Amino acid sequence: MNREQRAKLDAMLRQPHGESPASVEAFRADFKAMMARMVVPDGLRTTQTTLGDRPALRIEPGEGRRPGTILYFHGGVWVLGSPETALSLTGHLAVKTGFSVLSLDYRLAPEHPFPAAIDDTLSAYRALLESGQDPASIVFAGDSAGGGLAVTTSLAARDAGLPLPAAILGFSSMFDVTWAGESMDTKNDIDPIFTRESLAQTTAMYLAGADPHQPLLSPALHADLTGLPPMLLQAGTNEVLLDDSTRMAARATAAGVDVILDVTADVPHGFQVFVGLLDEAGEALDRAALFLAQHLHAPDKENAPVS
Amino acid sequence: MNREQRAKLDAMLRQPHGESPASVEAFRADFKAMMARMVVPDGLRTTQTTLGDRPALRIEPGEGRRPGTILYFHGGVWVLGSPETALSLTGHLAVKTGFSVLSLDYRLAPEHPFPAAIDDTLSAYRALLESGQDPASIVFAGDSAGGGLAVTTSLAARDAGLPLPAAILGFSSMFDVTWAGESMDTKNDIDPIFTRESLAQTTAMYLAGADPHQPLLSPALHADLTGLPPMLLQAGTNEVLLDDSTRMAARATAAGVDVILDVTADVPHGFQVFVGLLDEAGEALDRAALFLAQHLHAPDKENAPVS
Repeated sequence: MNREQRAKLDAMLRQPHGESPASVEAFRADFKAMMARMVVPDGLRTTQTTLGDRPALRIEPGEGRRPGTILYFHGGVWVLGSPETALSLTGHLAVKTGFSVLSLDYRLAPEHPFPAAIDDTLSAYRALLESGQDPASIVFAGDSAGGGLAVTTSLAARDAGLPLPAAILGFSSMFDVTWAGESMDTKNDIDPIFTRESLAQTTAMYLAGADPHQPLLSPALHADLTGLPPMLLQAGTNEVLLDDSTRMAARATAAGVDVILDVTADVPHGFQVFVGLLDEAGEALDRAALFLAQHLHAPDKENAPVS
Repeated sequence: MNREQRAKLDAMLRQPHGESPASVEAFRADFKAMMARMVVPDGLRTTQTTLGDRPALRIEPGEGRRPGTILYFHGGVWVLGSPETALSLTGHLAVKTGFSVLSLDYRLAPEHPFPAAIDDTLSAYRALLESGQDPASIVFAGDSAGGGLAVTTSLAARDAGLPLPAAILGFSSMFDVTWAGESMDTKNDIDPIFTRESLAQTTAMYLAGADPHQPLLSPALHADLTGLPPMLLQAGTNEVLLDDSTRMAARATAAGVDVILDVTADVPHGFQVFVGLLDEAGEALDRAALFLAQHLHAPDKENAPVS
């Protein structure tokens, strides 16, 4: 536990950020520049590939490779981000687990509003299954909006009659675009990154008028979670999104899902990217890696690298 | 995930148990006989010792020893049990972590009602500190009533001005002897081990008329948890005590404590003892071992075995 590191990171994030970006393009460029400063582990092998109709980045550890795939959905409020902006998280997950990460470049709003992102994530999963990969050797993971996609893609897969992945991992996930969580109020002055207003403004581009009260948009409120695989939900207490994870955990537990709710005090949204600055980041990723290893079971025939 | 093992264990626990024990002595003997059937790992070194004024059992792994101490409080509703009945849990923790476990034989009710148990656990911790051991190299752990003691002993230590241990681990803990958790009702027909009535009858011996509405008896309701170390709370969904852990987790998170709430579906109270029958038991203990290793930091001078 390192309270000093937590306070230093918090102070850093609270420094004035300058003007709000003038356009979606500028917003995306700012996010890309910020995420490019995060530590990426050495020795990764990255390969451009496609999954379904979308580009994807395959990320593999230089050594210690084990059979199994993490299908990863990056964060960015469904408007920003790419496999590149999530490379710190996916790279650390690859190194810590030995699994191959497939990080999907799903379509973004406002150009492609809901449900384009889920159409893409579900197509990507379907493509993996059609390539012959055992669902027991696939897990879904994501941060922020991508954590939301990890759950909603599972729901869409179940409802499409597909077998489910072996586990779901969400970092600081968005599970309610009605913003009804208590932490939206109680953490509004504490969260150094988001406010209810900033989230609502950005996600309005994703909603494009869709009713937010539906399972694939607000699963913490409206989803039937029956049959979902074991879930690990990590969050910080300095985020308005904290109760997205606490409510999802309660709801999933009530639906008979194995759930680990893993909350670190006094750290911000997506704190796992701050490996190197914050001991808690690497420790949380180590717990995530153990969780994935406990649930992902690759059949022997997959001991050869997946093509 | 092994749903078949979970169902088989549940059926086994639901078999008729014969008559209720006629006396506290018979109840203790039955519990001892049942716990003697649990798997204890090979190669443990066990040594009788004392801590404060009480006997304790030191449990060490045969190999892979690392500096650090788990001060362990066994379960048994404050009426039953001993370091011997907890040997499956403490043995696996010793082997999986490499740490030395000190399992305390605290005084039991009805001979010694509240607060005798906490007097003993606090004296044991004080004795460890007075022997020169760094609190950063000590964690508290316990199952059931002992999980309750892990938290209440921390509260008593804080209030006595002592430094706190590095972490708290609770398996299916008792945090509310007013039995106000929702799961006391919703799980009453599902729990194969306890009912609200059976718990209330047994703990009445521990209370001996004391008001249950106080922090050292019902910390999930009444404790100020500020400053407590990181907590891992594991529970099953087939237990009336489930909401002891969920409420403690919510309360501790609100108090700024790092908390992991780790709930496994369709498994009973204290499922971690069923190593060998249930894959989830060993997996839960592995997650507990990682959590303890992440928080317990022994100074270099303690690389020699603790006397």
